[in-house]
Amino acid sequence: MADIRVIEVKESVFADNDRKADELRARLRREGMFLLNLMSSPGSGKTTTLLRTAEALRDELSLAVMEADIDSDVDARTMVDAGVRSIQVHTGGMCHLDAAMTEQGLDALVATGGPVDLAILENVGNLVCPAEFDTGASANAMILSVPEGDDKPLKYPLMFSICDVVLINKIDAMPIFDFDLARATENIHLRNPRAEVIPICAKTGEGIEAWAAWLRRAVAAWKGDAA
Amino acid sequence: MADIRVIEVKESVFADNDRKADELRARLRREGMFLLNLMSSPGSGKTTTLLRTAEALRDELSLAVMEADIDSDVDARTMVDAGVRSIQVHTGGMCHLDAAMTEQGLDALVATGGPVDLAILENVGNLVCPAEFDTGASANAMILSVPEGDDKPLKYPLMFSICDVVLINKIDAMPIFDFDLARATENIHLRNPRAEVIPICAKTGEGIEAWAAWLRRAVAAWKGDAA
Repeated sequence: MADIRVIEVKESVFADNDRKADELRARLRREGMFLLNLMSSPGSGKTTTLLRTAEALRDELSLAVMEADIDSDVDARTMVDAGVRSIQVHTGGMCHLDAAMTEQGLDALVATGGPVDLAILENVGNLVCPAEFDTGASANAMILSVPEGDDKPLKYPLMFSICDVVLINKIDAMPIFDFDLARATENIHLRNPRAEVIPICAKTGEGIEAWAAWLRRAVAAWKGDAA
Repeated sequence: MADIRVIEVKESVFADNDRKADELRARLRREGMFLLNLMSSPGSGKTTTLLRTAEALRDELSLAVMEADIDSDVDARTMVDAGVRSIQVHTGGMCHLDAAMTEQGLDALVATGGPVDLAILENVGNLVCPAEFDTGASANAMILSVPEGDDKPLKYPLMFSICDVVLINKIDAMPIFDFDLARATENIHLRNPRAEVIPICAKTGEGIEAWAAWLRRAVAAWKGDAA
């Protein structure tokens, strides 16, 4: 089994996380790296979605993943076993990553083989605290999974309001859960009218092409290659 | 539609939350009230489980619910519409409740009609932060739902280690998710050998009698009525 690179990150000494986040974003832009901050509840399917994403974009973009968790290296192991460049980031009990922690993770990721077109931070599974800290990422994405229910944008408003794109995962489970896609989309747009909503099933691959297309456009725009 | 009592709770000024929690527990014991702190990820089925619980225990115990959320009164409305005594507690953006916030909520709940045998705090949906703050409750319970996956005890160790009982909900969805009940139980006991594990399906009512029996015993023991 491959060795998993695990890094312990420490909470920021910066009083002003927003300033640190802006600095990191400027660096990312200079270095032509797009960093996606992917958030969700525990168990919404972040890791499976990332496996599918890596598969879809493998031939076009260099991609690497930072798996953040309080403990365990379960997710980085899954990624590495699937051939995806990945490190495990441990937050030392912290419920979120700030910009300084994110940069420590990014430096460790770059050290494993140089810069990438697309770096993805799989944030700690939590709909509350990660929304409060700008990580310095190029864009914020979140996954809402069908079993969680279509009322979540009402209960976790900040998370939905800061995301550029919301993936609705596990849509294959829609028949057995009381989840209305139109109502979910309406609740999301109530919090954030500009959020793109993309229904997917990471397990079957449904919708992954639309998600990959979103990422392609975002990365190209970030690098200034496209309109 | 019934009016929903909403209370805004403030973070504790107590430096020592543990002391405040012990004081609240002593008060609960004096007043013969059992307070259950119910935690989980967003969307694991806490509210539906509480509706079933109230149904199962209605004729034996007086029961009331504090629905804690960052925003919205969706859950308290659901409970009140079902005839369950309930208030909505808003945490003002906070990702958890501490003992002082819990006591503010409890006082507001008691003000709606006197003490109860069983008060239940539905904590903010979050597997990280609520585990770090003793609310002063008589017991801690959590729900792990099948779609979240059986690896969650590995990723959120503290939450599983502080719970007296873990309900595994949505077991009707087991056939369509990769969730192994034996492996989940093993992972839970790895974190907490004493945790009781009760599989349920809040939607169909399966397992609710076992859960109600656990609560009956716990309330009776707390009141000193039973061995």
